Amino acid sequence: MPQTVAHAEDGHELWLRASPLPAPQRSALRHQATRLQTTAHGPTARLALAELQRGLARLGATPARGGKGGTITLELVQDSRINDEGFHITARPDGQTVIAARREIGLLYGVFHYLRLAATGAPLATLDLASSPRVQLRVLNHWDNLDGVVERGYSGRSIWDWWRLPDWRDTLYTEYARANASLGINGVVVNNVNAKSTSLTAPYIAKLAAIAGELRPWGIRVYLSARWTAPMEIGGLKSADPLDPAVAAWWRAKSDEIYAAIPDFGGFLVKANSEGQPGPQDYRRSHAEGANMLAAAVKPHGGVVMWRAFVYAHDNPDDRAKQAYNDFQPLDGQFADNVLVQVKNGAIDFQPREPFHPLFGAMPKTNLMMEFQITKEYVGQSTHLTYLGTLFSETLQADTQAKGTGSTVAKVVDGTLDGHRLTGMAGVANIGADRDWSGSIFNQADWYAFGRLAWDPELSPETIAREWAAQTFGPAPKVVNTVTTIMMPSREAAVDYMTPLGLAHVMGTGHHYGPAPWVSHLARPEWNPVYYHKADAQGIGFDRSAKGSNAISQYAPPIAQKLSDPATTDERQLLWFHHLPWDYRLKNGEALWSGMVHHYDAGVAQVARMQVQWDSLQPYIDKERFAKTQAFLAIQRREAQWWRDASIAYFQSVNHLDLPSGSAKPAHDLDWYKEQNLPYAPGNP
Amino acid sequence: MPQTVAHAEDGHELWLRASPLPAPQRSALRHQATRLQTTAHGPTARLALAELQRGLARLGATPARGGKGGTITLELVQDSRINDEGFHITARPDGQTVIAARREIGLLYGVFHYLRLAATGAPLATLDLASSPRVQLRVLNHWDNLDGVVERGYSGRSIWDWWRLPDWRDTLYTEYARANASLGINGVVVNNVNAKSTSLTAPYIAKLAAIAGELRPWGIRVYLSARWTAPMEIGGLKSADPLDPAVAAWWRAKSDEIYAAIPDFGGFLVKANSEGQPGPQDYRRSHAEGANMLAAAVKPHGGVVMWRAFVYAHDNPDDRAKQAYNDFQPLDGQFADNVLVQVKNGAIDFQPREPFHPLFGAMPKTNLMMEFQITKEYVGQSTHLTYLGTLFSETLQADTQAKGTGSTVAKVVDGTLDGHRLTGMAGVANIGADRDWSGSIFNQADWYAFGRLAWDPELSPETIAREWAAQTFGPAPKVVNTVTTIMMPSREAAVDYMTPLGLAHVMGTGHHYGPAPWVSHLARPEWNPVYYHKADAQGIGFDRSAKGSNAISQYAPPIAQKLSDPATTDERQLLWFHHLPWDYRLKNGEALWSGMVHHYDAGVAQVARMQVQWDSLQPYIDKERFAKTQAFLAIQRREAQWWRDASIAYFQSVNHLDLPSGSAKPAHDLDWYKEQNLPYAPGNP
Repeated sequence: MPQTVAHAEDGHELWLRASPLPAPQRSALRHQATRLQTTAHGPTARLALAELQRGLARLGATPARGGKGGTITLELVQDSRINDEGFHITARPDGQTVIAARREIGLLYGVFHYLRLAATGAPLATLDLASSPRVQLRVLNHWDNLDGVVERGYSGRSIWDWWRLPDWRDTLYTEYARANASLGINGVVVNNVNAKSTSLTAPYIAKLAAIAGELRPWGIRVYLSARWTAPMEIGGLKSADPLDPAVAAWWRAKSDEIYAAIPDFGGFLVKANSEGQPGPQDYRRSHAEGANMLAAAVKPHGGVVMWRAFVYAHDNPDDRAKQAYNDFQPLDGQFADNVLVQVKNGAIDFQPREPFHPLFGAMPKTNLMMEFQITKEYVGQSTHLTYLGTLFSETLQADTQAKGTGSTVAKVVDGTLDGHRLTGMAGVANIGADRDWSGSIFNQADWYAFGRLAWDPELSPETIAREWAAQTFGPAPKVVNTVTTIMMPSREAAVDYMTPLGLAHVMGTGHHYGPAPWVSHLARPEWNPVYYHKADAQGIGFDRSAKGSNAISQYAPPIAQKLSDPATTDERQLLWFHHLPWDYRLKNGEALWSGMVHHYDAGVAQVARMQVQWDSLQPYIDKERFAKTQAFLAIQRREAQWWRDASIAYFQSVNHLDLPSGSAKPAHDLDWYKEQNLPYAPGNP
Repeated sequence: MPQTVAHAEDGHELWLRASPLPAPQRSALRHQATRLQTTAHGPTARLALAELQRGLARLGATPARGGKGGTITLELVQDSRINDEGFHITARPDGQTVIAARREIGLLYGVFHYLRLAATGAPLATLDLASSPRVQLRVLNHWDNLDGVVERGYSGRSIWDWWRLPDWRDTLYTEYARANASLGINGVVVNNVNAKSTSLTAPYIAKLAAIAGELRPWGIRVYLSARWTAPMEIGGLKSADPLDPAVAAWWRAKSDEIYAAIPDFGGFLVKANSEGQPGPQDYRRSHAEGANMLAAAVKPHGGVVMWRAFVYAHDNPDDRAKQAYNDFQPLDGQFADNVLVQVKNGAIDFQPREPFHPLFGAMPKTNLMMEFQITKEYVGQSTHLTYLGTLFSETLQADTQAKGTGSTVAKVVDGTLDGHRLTGMAGVANIGADRDWSGSIFNQADWYAFGRLAWDPELSPETIAREWAAQTFGPAPKVVNTVTTIMMPSREAAVDYMTPLGLAHVMGTGHHYGPAPWVSHLARPEWNPVYYHKADAQGIGFDRSAKGSNAISQYAPPIAQKLSDPATTDERQLLWFHHLPWDYRLKNGEALWSGMVHHYDAGVAQVARMQVQWDSLQPYIDKERFAKTQAFLAIQRREAQWWRDASIAYFQSVNHLDLPSGSAKPAHDLDWYKEQNLPYAPGNP
């Protein structure tokens, strides 16, 4: 296997693989970079210099020894245009290129950015480019259990080899840290938010310290998900009441113990009183009282608490979409300054499309951080090609109108809207021990897009797609253009074949894979797809207007106003906010039902186009990655049809309407679709 | 990462990695092999030629284009000296080398053997070497569940990506098949013996057919573990009684369905009426009645049934070591001719050392196949370096005396003792999706040794170790000698620090990791370590003589005779067969207790020696594999001490005896060792 390994294109190298530039750019770059030097010599600066050498080699531009030409210098400076993680790249016609930063991590980020510019064919002869991350905490959330199983993971077992830590430090940890650093990701929550107390015991703190040691030179801090009842489960206390002094003392002592082993430990992530997890409300205390107690424990060490707002109660009859807002908005201003409230992009749960979460813009006195899901629990998991850069950006660019037009979610998250200094963006990782890290080559783009948007929420998803494509498949324009053409509409295609016109949560139970709009038997009403689409003989959709659950009132008045009328509601969110008759007229004049069917058809047709576009790249892509993506697109094509047919078969059983002319009947009857079961579907909790 | 990948020494290439020969051998080989040709052109012959080219490159002996020199020809012939899988290699002074075989698979095996000879520095100028496998079915048993979890697996999740099969055929399948073919392994049971009916449903048969298609060119057949109650669970029948015509008809139809998709399907492996699994005894039918019903279903297609003899009943008060013999020996002669009874090497369960299983030699009219455990459930799992070639060979060379001296287990297994044509050897795989396949570099040697011994049970474990070392780390004598010196006594070291002098089954509950000789609370008596060592104030050991359970009567008279007296019992098995006073005199004159302690000490000391020997190889071994093995040896050293100290602390609490002078007290008191628990230990069922 040496040969195959030497040329392995198994995706393991991610966007950092060798993709030599065209000859002219290559020689230009080689001339630009004949000498490489650094004036800083700490571990991270040494990594930065090594990455620069390695990256030039990757691009086929290894400096000729003693050749005449320019110099690239890594230099620590005081520069007010950048922050502590930023960098400033200047290239002068005399051939002097300087990558400057205030700290060594900025030098590393600057090197990776310089290489990104080179890989994407940007001119490098003259540069004056300053860049700083706009979000402070750029964090991956691993939903990894201590037994190696990853909840909602579709790319193999956890990369964390807890059993053989701390003695054995897998080389994978360094590769992982390097890939994250190339994007500016600076934090990692290593364990599942459905946490176990074991991760807080001494042996596991020692294991975590070993991981922290591997990630530290790359500018990455480790965090832990904390089990609320740990003081009882491993501390021998009778209670976990946040106002019980013994409980607070236990968390202080535990924090001191962790920081003694990991001086730069980031802090805790908490899922409390959510989906059966314990929390302060079990003691009639508020989320703020719980978060602040924990925050006080890590405060002396400079740590933070990331407190999730993903809550909905089984005994709460109100619209699930309203419950997080109802619980948290009244607490605005009550959270300690080292607490971030972590809010999902939408109010339900990472659906193919959701309106932005109403908490954004509604808690100006609170540090709100974004939680995106990179792992595609609801968007095709490991096989469907559905680029999430467009989904992330759609939410970030949504205008909350909280302080008038232009009050985008991005400005809430980067702190500029309300003047917060502690800011953050979390992404639920799609990373596992599979050789390609993310379950498919294209899923790597979602990891990449998250990292780039956490650095700069204003980046366009198309720019990011082009960057990723050039680095992942090489800079040939035909390749970059075609790959980008495949990626950009791919998430909308999934919305069309899964949840058109604002539908949501119609997937299979448990594994959340495949269509199951008919499910109505689950214990909790809000677990059932029928709760969300409310289809009957007359119509379909969830009325969240004033006549309904009035969830629209959680948005700023100008938005609530628009959402109060179907005619002024973005049709992409139509059935999220309104229950409408099947013959409701869409803007294009057709009836709602035939519009729905046409969306399903359009989604399937788009996947067929993606197949043709990918096939056209066969001459340009290595055999391995071409074949894998081709196989996955075939799965996606078949399953898009399945989604379309099963959904139509079900809704027809409810509305008894014919299909618009030109739309094919489902391949099977409804019973057949209902009988499909998926044993051993991956990622289940 | 291209650079790291190009030179990756992560163990993924196994014993097939690039290890260039010394210059003289390299040029000799290049001269020997300037032209490569084949007169056969089927898929397997083409693979054989490609492997020859690839292998020569691996050894640094790529033929110079159009160079003058010898020719290697792959040729199908009629040759009575070899069987259908054998090969015959001749090399003449005129430079003509011929690798001949009766079938293409023999050509592939011949090529791999020729490359093995080259890699180990054997002279190649003149050869006349005929070799045929002595065992017909050389099979890996994967205890892999359909959800990807491997029972008793310590090297990551299952390599079988059931979820994305049949659409996606991972390149790993080909790499896996190639590694097996290089050893002559020709069968794979893909699913756990604790089987689920789902693996027999249509979707899973289609997935299996895809795997079979990948393995077929490499001469490997797929088999399935069969769930006895499948006719009820997926067939809608009311019973699984083997004598119920409807049940037999269901299995016939299911077999026809499988063979329609996989014409060369190997057959079924069955764990029946064992550890809670259902079986024919649930219907008061014998194992033979069950096996024969299944055998009839696959017979028309040329399939076989491998029926495990690993049985012991919770309601049977008799010595567990006797129960398999008691159940199966009376059935000798009753099994159909396409049934193999699969017998573990010992009567308990893959302990560091067991006497050979009394069924070997006791069922002359039955096809008996061997079951070894390659995955080291009881011998250090993924981190301890304990080469199992010596364990496998010790059992194979054991003399059953069934037909007088020389009636070795090997002769039972290869069929020569009783004239059986259908023969087999199974190994419970230690293979997972971890990059190094087997959890450690040295665990790969156990996979290798199993394959080589299945081909020829008479091979010496040292020869195999040297072969493996040369191919895995390169042919330098210092390396090969030192690695072999580390491997050969390594299993005895584990016996010494875990279960000296014939002790067994004193490990932790569930995960079977670490010492727990004190456990006595488990529901079934034979699950408890105290059941096996029976230590009390007076003595220790399990009396299996006529005064005890009389298990010795299950062996041939000359052996039973020797075992009836401690003085004539091999001391390595002393406490397996005898309960003896703590002051019993060992052959070397010392008391049993101090002898035991000295064995524990010797085991720990040997691991310390292994560390020194490995460290001496640092200049010769790549950084990655050196560091990983060094880290694992440090774990083994610490845990050998743990085994030694915990065992001594416990037995001292029973016998209240002092340690012999010069032996150190345990580091902690007994309670400390009892308190150690291992959350999330891998491999649990």
